[in-house]
Amino acid sequence: MSLYETLADEIARSIASGVLRAGDKLPSVRDACSARGVSPSTVFQAYYLLEARGLVRAQPRSGYYVNVPAESLPPEPGASCPDGESTELAISERIFDILDSVRNRDVTPLGSAFPSPLLFPLPRLAQAMAAHLKRQDPRDTVDDLAPGNPRLRRQIALRYLIGGINLPASDIVITNGALEALNLCLQAVTQPGDSVMVEAPTFYGALQALERLGLKALEVPTHPRTGIDLAAMEAAIERHAPRACWLMTQFQNPLGSLMPDDRKRQLVELLARHDIPLIEDDVYGELYFGPARPVPAKAYDTRGLVLHCSSFSKCLAPGYRIGWASAGRYAQRVQRLKLSSTLSASGPAQGAIAEYLEQGGYDRHLRRLRETLQTQQERMADAIAHAFPAGTRVTRQQGGFFLWLELPAAVDALALHRQALSRGISVAPGPIFSASGQFGSALRLNYGHPWDARTESAIRVLGELAREACSPAARMRPSANVSREARRPPRSS
Amino acid sequence: MSLYETLADEIARSIASGVLRAGDKLPSVRDACSARGVSPSTVFQAYYLLEARGLVRAQPRSGYYVNVPAESLPPEPGASCPDGESTELAISERIFDILDSVRNRDVTPLGSAFPSPLLFPLPRLAQAMAAHLKRQDPRDTVDDLAPGNPRLRRQIALRYLIGGINLPASDIVITNGALEALNLCLQAVTQPGDSVMVEAPTFYGALQALERLGLKALEVPTHPRTGIDLAAMEAAIERHAPRACWLMTQFQNPLGSLMPDDRKRQLVELLARHDIPLIEDDVYGELYFGPARPVPAKAYDTRGLVLHCSSFSKCLAPGYRIGWASAGRYAQRVQRLKLSSTLSASGPAQGAIAEYLEQGGYDRHLRRLRETLQTQQERMADAIAHAFPAGTRVTRQQGGFFLWLELPAAVDALALHRQALSRGISVAPGPIFSASGQFGSALRLNYGHPWDARTESAIRVLGELAREACSPAARMRPSANVSREARRPPRSS
Repeated sequence: MSLYETLADEIARSIASGVLRAGDKLPSVRDACSARGVSPSTVFQAYYLLEARGLVRAQPRSGYYVNVPAESLPPEPGASCPDGESTELAISERIFDILDSVRNRDVTPLGSAFPSPLLFPLPRLAQAMAAHLKRQDPRDTVDDLAPGNPRLRRQIALRYLIGGINLPASDIVITNGALEALNLCLQAVTQPGDSVMVEAPTFYGALQALERLGLKALEVPTHPRTGIDLAAMEAAIERHAPRACWLMTQFQNPLGSLMPDDRKRQLVELLARHDIPLIEDDVYGELYFGPARPVPAKAYDTRGLVLHCSSFSKCLAPGYRIGWASAGRYAQRVQRLKLSSTLSASGPAQGAIAEYLEQGGYDRHLRRLRETLQTQQERMADAIAHAFPAGTRVTRQQGGFFLWLELPAAVDALALHRQALSRGISVAPGPIFSASGQFGSALRLNYGHPWDARTESAIRVLGELAREACSPAARMRPSANVSREARRPPRSS
Repeated sequence: MSLYETLADEIARSIASGVLRAGDKLPSVRDACSARGVSPSTVFQAYYLLEARGLVRAQPRSGYYVNVPAESLPPEPGASCPDGESTELAISERIFDILDSVRNRDVTPLGSAFPSPLLFPLPRLAQAMAAHLKRQDPRDTVDDLAPGNPRLRRQIALRYLIGGINLPASDIVITNGALEALNLCLQAVTQPGDSVMVEAPTFYGALQALERLGLKALEVPTHPRTGIDLAAMEAAIERHAPRACWLMTQFQNPLGSLMPDDRKRQLVELLARHDIPLIEDDVYGELYFGPARPVPAKAYDTRGLVLHCSSFSKCLAPGYRIGWASAGRYAQRVQRLKLSSTLSASGPAQGAIAEYLEQGGYDRHLRRLRETLQTQQERMADAIAHAFPAGTRVTRQQGGFFLWLELPAAVDALALHRQALSRGISVAPGPIFSASGQFGSALRLNYGHPWDARTESAIRVLGELAREACSPAARMRPSANVSREARRPPRSS
């Protein structure tokens, strides 16, 4: 064996024995050279070999990281099978109750909808805020109310342009987060009683919006890798004549699916043939783990039928509540709905983000954020593989910060949610993502928080609760095993 | 004549001759002593005498100011007479068109809905923002999303408590300005098709909200001094069974009316007897010119039927978009509507205002702001008295920053609005304040901007346009007189 093969084998053994774990970074080439007394090219060749074997991956400008061995992971879930009916909604209160219950700061926040705020450049944003407020013309505080800060709209348009998408700044309306943008767009294209196509499972905020506006949900089968099923969508259109479609083409919440580019184009074309507006929620688009930012469906919109919405809440400035809509032919209607419902987004937050973007550094921040999230995902997937019962299926997200778990049918996700909460762990139970009460054994888990002993222990407790739910014997003596287990010190990391 | 009577007479003559004008400050007692070689008590007695004659007024902690002589002012308008029908709305687009047209920064902003941003403590708010961002726990960026920053909610509750009103912080939901609060409250208590009582004239934002939600407007006669007519309201309730009432009890926009305390109580009692929720828009409550802050109708709410809304947009932080609702028995419903429509108000803006309020100084700022506004009102009322045609009626606002003018019936306010705009002056024409197209000869003028040569000239131009509209001869040769006049240098102030 050559030097580099010996080195590669040694590392492979460390990975196999668990000394190096999924998500760990390999030593830098320089460190490896000096530790081993070998040349840089030997180290490079060893790392290339490991990469070719699928054991590690290169992360540009960062280094090499240990992969989760694919064979050790639970299988992925398949496409969903909603019942094909158009459903009147009565789920909003239940969703609220569950969301309320997980808002306790002392809980391990696996049910949270946000990544850890510690991942965001809050001090740099504070500096940008100070700079903005200092140089602001007082008249702008009133004059720029709607459709939003012109510098910010220009920066957003520029980012799309660099991604190859032409969204004129004049079409962009700044909103109070993407949630307001989505709600305004939905209002702009529907009347009470209309049916709206959504994914199954779908973001619970979409279900609440439909319910509030008196709309019906038409759930379309969705695959965890490739997104909404276009053949099923066409059938749903023929049968129910929906008036709009609301979905996420990229890193869908909760599935994490990423529609391939040609499917995005087909989606836009299919809807255009039926003159159905598409409300595209793209809040996770920046959080891709692949080599380049994928383009949203809006990139294929030639007829102004795509109402594209996004925000900075998940990737830069949580709590600033700055999002936007680029609503194509509905732009003026959306802008006027915005004006008469909340007038404008907060001026200081808009100005601070505009200043931050102008200063540069956003892409650097995003690169680090994506690396962190990808590593945390691997840690969590690995831990789930060890902790959860046989039959558990887990998505392999290509971006974002959620894993979707389908547990054996014996597990009641709502019961598991309550049991977990009493152990100080929140989860997002599957039924809140369904208009028709599906996904009763599914969970959405957030891996956007630092992977630490508390999180690792939480995954172990969840896995035990799930195993227990699967075992009739264990159900006879509830939680005895689990509490012993929960008291064990966490595995050292 | 005694020394002090001689001094008082001299000042009275200066006022009569126009040397001292409405809103001017008299010399301080110290300056008057040294200029005249008299004792402080002589000056005080002279000023007391002038105050007793109604020529000047004392402003606490500031000094003595020249009053506008009541006999020189145009008469006040009477109560409005809407047609008593419940009106389906189709006015929102027209209102938008007019609002769009006045959004030009180079225009003299008499049609604006905001006071001058120069009247606000923007540098101190910026400092408070920096302090907030510095001491903020990153976790608060996500955890405090809804119902809002706890420090801010406590400060707001404290201010009510000092005013003698018990609004628990836990009932206060922070919103994106009062406009969102009002919209959420309206949604919380109505269904499409319901009738809602409003004032005549009423804030155009209320009309747009009703139209957007598919509600009907029931306009109730309203008096420019004492507000909505309770007997007429009772009759409207009997006849139309409205489901809610939306109004301003204090410094109503656009009339400026202030309901006396006992009428506020009667209002709350009347609505409670019919189980009708009252949405109270109190955004101008802090801008009183009387000796003490009047209390809102919410103070008389014993049954949780008053949904009280306010904001900092008109009195502290324009563009921050921070308002709130205290919605009584509807508090949870409003909070959940907020959560599912825009999630939360902007975190930095909430934190900065909380910090500012905690530091103290808000009351000092408000005192100065009220004095400035009152002086500017007198200047504008005085100028209107000189410039506008006979038959013009003008409100005497007791707070806020709008004057409401009822011009002779020959004047078409919408035409005047267009003519004024072509001269670089915006106004808010009467019809945008009416569901049924009333107030065709009325204008709302904003006196919240510094009284300067440009504003003075704008009032003169408006007056001439109005006179011309009244004179058939002048209408034969449009605008010839006026353009000459408009080119005259402004009267020196």
